[in-house]
Amino acid sequence: MSKIIDFQTDPSKYRHWRISLDGEIAHLYMDVDEKGGLFDGYELKLNSYDLGVDIELADAVQRLRFEHPAVKAVVLRSGKDNVFCAGANIRMLGRASHAHKVNFCKFTNETRNTFEAAGAESGQHYICAVKGSCAGGGYELALACDHIILTDDSTSAVALPEVPLLAVLPGTGGLTRVTDKRKVRRDLADVFCAMEEGVKGKRAKEWRLVDEVVANSKFDESVLARAKDFATKSKRPDGAEGVKLTPLKRQFAEDGSISYSTIEVALDRAGRKATITINGPDGDAPADMDAFHAQGAEAWMLRAARELDDAILHLRLNETELGVVVFRTQGDPQRVLAHEALLLANKDHWLANEVLLYWKRLLKRIDMTARSLVAVVEHGSCYAGVLAEILWAVDRSYMMEGEFEGDNRPLATLTLAGSNFGQYPMGNDLTRLQTRFLGEPEAVEALQGRIGDALEADEAKELGLVTFAFDDIDWEDELRIFLEERASFSPDALTGMEANLRFPGPETMETRIFGRLTAWQNWIFQRPNAVGEDGALQRYGSGKRGEYNMQRV
Amino acid sequence: MSKIIDFQTDPSKYRHWRISLDGEIAHLYMDVDEKGGLFDGYELKLNSYDLGVDIELADAVQRLRFEHPAVKAVVLRSGKDNVFCAGANIRMLGRASHAHKVNFCKFTNETRNTFEAAGAESGQHYICAVKGSCAGGGYELALACDHIILTDDSTSAVALPEVPLLAVLPGTGGLTRVTDKRKVRRDLADVFCAMEEGVKGKRAKEWRLVDEVVANSKFDESVLARAKDFATKSKRPDGAEGVKLTPLKRQFAEDGSISYSTIEVALDRAGRKATITINGPDGDAPADMDAFHAQGAEAWMLRAARELDDAILHLRLNETELGVVVFRTQGDPQRVLAHEALLLANKDHWLANEVLLYWKRLLKRIDMTARSLVAVVEHGSCYAGVLAEILWAVDRSYMMEGEFEGDNRPLATLTLAGSNFGQYPMGNDLTRLQTRFLGEPEAVEALQGRIGDALEADEAKELGLVTFAFDDIDWEDELRIFLEERASFSPDALTGMEANLRFPGPETMETRIFGRLTAWQNWIFQRPNAVGEDGALQRYGSGKRGEYNMQRV
Repeated sequence: MSKIIDFQTDPSKYRHWRISLDGEIAHLYMDVDEKGGLFDGYELKLNSYDLGVDIELADAVQRLRFEHPAVKAVVLRSGKDNVFCAGANIRMLGRASHAHKVNFCKFTNETRNTFEAAGAESGQHYICAVKGSCAGGGYELALACDHIILTDDSTSAVALPEVPLLAVLPGTGGLTRVTDKRKVRRDLADVFCAMEEGVKGKRAKEWRLVDEVVANSKFDESVLARAKDFATKSKRPDGAEGVKLTPLKRQFAEDGSISYSTIEVALDRAGRKATITINGPDGDAPADMDAFHAQGAEAWMLRAARELDDAILHLRLNETELGVVVFRTQGDPQRVLAHEALLLANKDHWLANEVLLYWKRLLKRIDMTARSLVAVVEHGSCYAGVLAEILWAVDRSYMMEGEFEGDNRPLATLTLAGSNFGQYPMGNDLTRLQTRFLGEPEAVEALQGRIGDALEADEAKELGLVTFAFDDIDWEDELRIFLEERASFSPDALTGMEANLRFPGPETMETRIFGRLTAWQNWIFQRPNAVGEDGALQRYGSGKRGEYNMQRV
Repeated sequence: MSKIIDFQTDPSKYRHWRISLDGEIAHLYMDVDEKGGLFDGYELKLNSYDLGVDIELADAVQRLRFEHPAVKAVVLRSGKDNVFCAGANIRMLGRASHAHKVNFCKFTNETRNTFEAAGAESGQHYICAVKGSCAGGGYELALACDHIILTDDSTSAVALPEVPLLAVLPGTGGLTRVTDKRKVRRDLADVFCAMEEGVKGKRAKEWRLVDEVVANSKFDESVLARAKDFATKSKRPDGAEGVKLTPLKRQFAEDGSISYSTIEVALDRAGRKATITINGPDGDAPADMDAFHAQGAEAWMLRAARELDDAILHLRLNETELGVVVFRTQGDPQRVLAHEALLLANKDHWLANEVLLYWKRLLKRIDMTARSLVAVVEHGSCYAGVLAEILWAVDRSYMMEGEFEGDNRPLATLTLAGSNFGQYPMGNDLTRLQTRFLGEPEAVEALQGRIGDALEADEAKELGLVTFAFDDIDWEDELRIFLEERASFSPDALTGMEANLRFPGPETMETRIFGRLTAWQNWIFQRPNAVGEDGALQRYGSGKRGEYNMQRV
């Protein structure tokens, strides 16, 4: 699987999904094109999915938020007659590299989380209307919705048959949402997850696996009624006009480097690193939300987020050998603050809210990126407010201290804003500053007194906001030695280390999905019982069961 | 590694540890015998350890609690001159099977947890006196202590060099305790965990890696002073007489089955299952704590715990192909309740407290056992109070309903006691009933009204206390089908599933160590970069670094 995977799409290109708008309710139909697999060698039968299907889904969810502000409830349903969704495509999983499997699962997990986020934060609730078999990743799609309605017929059931059938886990949030979100009694969860055929009818409701079971004859009517209930509770504005998410401006150079309008990604394959430069706004902030709305996808806060998001996803899936990602910013910190401030001052405006929430999701995407992340704070940097968050998302940071010979850029500074104290919480529900200063909560309080100050290296270091500050004499060597060393370590050990060190303190369902469930799934994705020649994933569909080494570990 | 690993030992047999008692302070010296490895093929140089070393350590910690109630502080120190401890032995790790590595780490993790438990629950605090190099698992030993004192000289340092040196994680709690217990700032933790040489002197204190750094000349004096401080704060009794942990009565049959005095373990290799029968007390409860003390290790509550603990550990390490563990109890439930009640009524007696705390640890050991766990509640069962906890530790349970032909035993019942509502919390700090009824907290409250009632199958099922109840007609078939099916599933998938389903809800440092850190470590223990022919673990000591596939996942 070596072709470039593109995360950019739009409804005109969808092969697997249809959106049908009906006032405040949108119907999102999953209707997977069997022949539309991202790679050759498998067919997406029975509404099974691969990364390509999920890229369209992620795009649909994003567009529903930005382009269709009037939508208050989204009904997720199947476009096929007898099946809701059979889950991730097994042949694809059987053929995919370990790295692809892991990154596929991570992206699908992030996409499932956006369903819940849309309901909780944006008042755009997902309701899952299940008719036909809803198994594995299919049920995991349902689990990520705010409400599950199951029709009561002889073939419609929810199931997590991964363990008995495939020797892997329901790893796209399945196990965790069953216990933590739906709070299914753990022994019933054990029974449920050990049966191939799943659970249907009123037992599914009794076991808390679905919210409602309704007769087939009343299914559509009930679904609509429930969608309307959710819409009624929503605080989304009526009659607001959406913002079109126009195609990104993006150019690939021959060596794989990328230029966007606000972001540059430079690749150093020998050094195994990618450097992402975020350029601050080149113009003043829009005067008000009307002006922001008129700029639409061109507004810097939205444009930079979309471009950075695309860059991160591209590196994750397409540049797996670049183990270190270096973040740089260049620009006017005051302008960054001004652009962000407009949104912060208008948080009750749906669009301001959406853009801020997008940054929240994007920063979490960075937190979850399995690369060594480094921020360098050079002269001319604009780490302020939202961009300063990157300093505490990364594993460590380096800041220029004092004048550098021949460098005429403004001295390196970083600037805190009010947004750093609650606007962009991590998956653990703490701010990045709270997470950073878990052992000294008083430090966070003290930092609130420094909002707006342009902090130079000595102060930033003293306050614990950057890891290292070096002057002109040491800067280059220190950074070079670190980057060389980091790039030489085992990528696996680094992935495990970073996954643990980045998320100290409390856990949420989200951190449990990425930190616990995913880790176990990744382990299983290495085990011969699943992925070996005679393992269950390879043998699936051959009529032969997997042959297992029966040793417990 | 196929020889039988025995978890029973006593100080007369120790090869690696020395206990020196000095009133309320005990000094626990680690002085590993290079030639004393549990298996052939490696030498335990530089105070490095294998499972055999840890079995002695676990025994020492346990005996300090039971045999030396006067001890209020334990100083953990090295018996060697220039090294504190070099961590787990790398050659052993390089040669060990995946299953042995995983189970070795689990047992060492459980043992580390007993340090913290001894301080928090028993007022027997562990103080770590670090002189010489304290690296990897050595520093993880220190991290599990309540206080770390580091001497300030040129060679004494704390380090977690696993990632750069060995391409594995500090997986025995290291990463988690650095961020969650010591609350080291996460970027500093990144720097610390990426350096081979570690951190010494006052920087170690500044980074929160140790609690004190003292001059070499004042080291012994400072250590003693600190131990005395902790002893002063302890509520352990003065002058109490300990209880000798006499050798277990244990007999192995030819087929590997085991008979203890209260426990039987029957093996069914073809069916891949072990059946553990716990026999209730055959005599009345001791009249008071004096009588209990006089019985000492013979008292049923202590004897059964020690025997069950040994059985579980034996199955974990020595019978890895038996994937299902079935729990049975037989005996008089009223007697179980009476034996437990004596301890519950005397919780302020150090020995009653210790025995109850041992059950707490033992039940957590069951929670953490990577086998499918099933409880069967047959006629004649004595699932009451402490033994009833097993019903909610297992993955699912089956209960006999109504009369069975030819079975004259008393009808199957289970009986709740007050202890089920707080005495034996799980690693997540909830009771097993709270965990079970996470979605219906009101159910737990209602159950308090049923304390003491002998609940038969229909009621137990209705109350959600067992998974299934079957009558004489269905019982055998249902159980047989389930056991056969379960034994046919992939052991890896079951391990991952059970690790997720058993611990819903909140997380603690303990659950994070077992659920997150361990899962990542297990994953890395499968990766060629660590364990492959050219991986870092295999190449360690050869002068060649590991050769890595640089793909990030």
